Amino acid sequence: MKVLAILYQGGEAATNEPRLLGTVENKLGIQQWLESQGHEFIVSSSKEGPDSDFQKHIVDAEILITTPFHPGYLTRELMEKAKNLKICITAGVGSDHIDLDAAVDHNIQVLEVSGSNVVSVAEHVMMSVLLLVSEIARNAFDLEGKVVGTLGAGRIGYRVLQRLQPFNCKELLYYDYSPLPAAAAESVGARRVEDLKEFVSQCDLVTINCPLHEGTRGLINADLLKHFKKGAWIVNTARGAICDKDAIAAALASGQINGYAGDVWNVQPAPKDHIWRTMKNHLGGGNGMVPHYSGTTLDAQARYANGTKTILENYLQNRPQEPQNIIVGDGRYESKAYGQR
Amino acid sequence: MKVLAILYQGGEAATNEPRLLGTVENKLGIQQWLESQGHEFIVSSSKEGPDSDFQKHIVDAEILITTPFHPGYLTRELMEKAKNLKICITAGVGSDHIDLDAAVDHNIQVLEVSGSNVVSVAEHVMMSVLLLVSEIARNAFDLEGKVVGTLGAGRIGYRVLQRLQPFNCKELLYYDYSPLPAAAAESVGARRVEDLKEFVSQCDLVTINCPLHEGTRGLINADLLKHFKKGAWIVNTARGAICDKDAIAAALASGQINGYAGDVWNVQPAPKDHIWRTMKNHLGGGNGMVPHYSGTTLDAQARYANGTKTILENYLQNRPQEPQNIIVGDGRYESKAYGQR
Repeated sequence: MKVLAILYQGGEAATNEPRLLGTVENKLGIQQWLESQGHEFIVSSSKEGPDSDFQKHIVDAEILITTPFHPGYLTRELMEKAKNLKICITAGVGSDHIDLDAAVDHNIQVLEVSGSNVVSVAEHVMMSVLLLVSEIARNAFDLEGKVVGTLGAGRIGYRVLQRLQPFNCKELLYYDYSPLPAAAAESVGARRVEDLKEFVSQCDLVTINCPLHEGTRGLINADLLKHFKKGAWIVNTARGAICDKDAIAAALASGQINGYAGDVWNVQPAPKDHIWRTMKNHLGGGNGMVPHYSGTTLDAQARYANGTKTILENYLQNRPQEPQNIIVGDGRYESKAYGQR
Repeated sequence: MKVLAILYQGGEAATNEPRLLGTVENKLGIQQWLESQGHEFIVSSSKEGPDSDFQKHIVDAEILITTPFHPGYLTRELMEKAKNLKICITAGVGSDHIDLDAAVDHNIQVLEVSGSNVVSVAEHVMMSVLLLVSEIARNAFDLEGKVVGTLGAGRIGYRVLQRLQPFNCKELLYYDYSPLPAAAAESVGARRVEDLKEFVSQCDLVTINCPLHEGTRGLINADLLKHFKKGAWIVNTARGAICDKDAIAAALASGQINGYAGDVWNVQPAPKDHIWRTMKNHLGGGNGMVPHYSGTTLDAQARYANGTKTILENYLQNRPQEPQNIIVGDGRYESKAYGQR
């Protein structure tokens, strides 16, 4: 059986640090285990264009492993060439780099290691929130007394609300297609706002914690940004493409928003001239962008490497998968998170 | 009556942002009020050496206003020249830049705006904790599952414990000369460790939240650092001189500690060649130092400017001061926080 993994190049760091499991060098810690069972295991970071290892090996691989950090973009066109492909495993959370509708049509399963990164991302959100709000001197504020809202109150968004709770915010709000269970909402003291424009207009800070799908792509665009409170902050560790990159940069320059932070980009790695690398507010600050790493702390790498191995074991031994890890099952969506057809 | 205030130069930023109250430009917002009552109000940032405005005007000022951010260092020697000086007001929290024993001897009152910065500092601590722990890639960890301890569990330290609570740390510890009330300790789930060496040996991360006085100066020195857990992180937003600067830099270089972050320096502003500006761990990171600003967000500036005015009003109208603001009262210490004689 041929297993193809597209991972990122860790370089010397990965050679010195075996806990950097999600790298080409350390191969999720599963090389020996796979090869001892007679499987072929191809690992590469080369993922763009027809000569890439990704496109060369996808044609006869049965299993594809990718990550959200250095995503191998599996389009419908590539899927049509992948005659043997049965299962895509995302080592991490977020499978928007895979054309999920096409996976349904081709009867290719898509699984991810649900929950492997929720804590790491929620912590990164909190760090970004505090960084933006407490920017130095003439633009430094307390988080206390501000209105903070999460767009998405799932497993990450809810953890963010929990961590915001002791900061004595003026109010915690959330926007989500379904309401939190009453006890959960009460325990974090969060109020649901059903209308998106009304939601953003009430927040001093909006944190985005929802998946990317056709319903959320470009959701934060020039039109919606007009409805934000003037000088609001935005933290997006979900997916870059949920925000319109040029509209964000323009809103930051005009002062409509005061800051934007996160670690996700609409294309990864981000091109050198990506405007989010250099955009600023009128005071020369307000940019908290870093490379995509919030779900890939060493603690999270251990979790997603373990989780990937479990999914592989289940597949190889024909055992059922854990339901919460299944995005696309046998020819249909199993998750509600991706706005399925 | 002559009032002398040593504040920091805000420059153009302060001209454009009137909420930067703690600057030479905006004069704590009290110039008009003081002058309308016939008082002389001298405001300057010049504070070092015999030709400075500080040393020139201290000789006949009755009231001295300083801040912890750009401290006018009031030594015993200077106090002996300050024949009219009756009261020192710290616009902010932390009066270690004033020789408090000398103030007792000279019957000079010392007051500060207690509580004006506790939230801002606790938020800065949380930001620094998250920054150090989640440093990128090969040195990125989750805060969840770590042991975190605060050295000092007073008004800031306790707020830090509260904010750490939802992060699911393995354990929260504190070291303090007096135990927290049982209900307070229980509500944050924190355990007291009475022996300092034992305390630091148990912590993955130590955050310092105690005042600087003769009992805490140089407390974190080469000897104590040997007792830290190897690779621990230190966050110090209290006072730079609580840590031995060269011992910290050496411990960071050797890997005994993995990171050091904070906004306080043993001398402020820090000299250009201060080793904390450039120290690094062996991976080239682990330095989270910024200028001293955590207690001076715009929200905090409003609080300490208001508080300073209230203390002045009480003094000018011969009304009693709020007890929690008094460090040195009529010829004696009123606060237990500064390790009085």
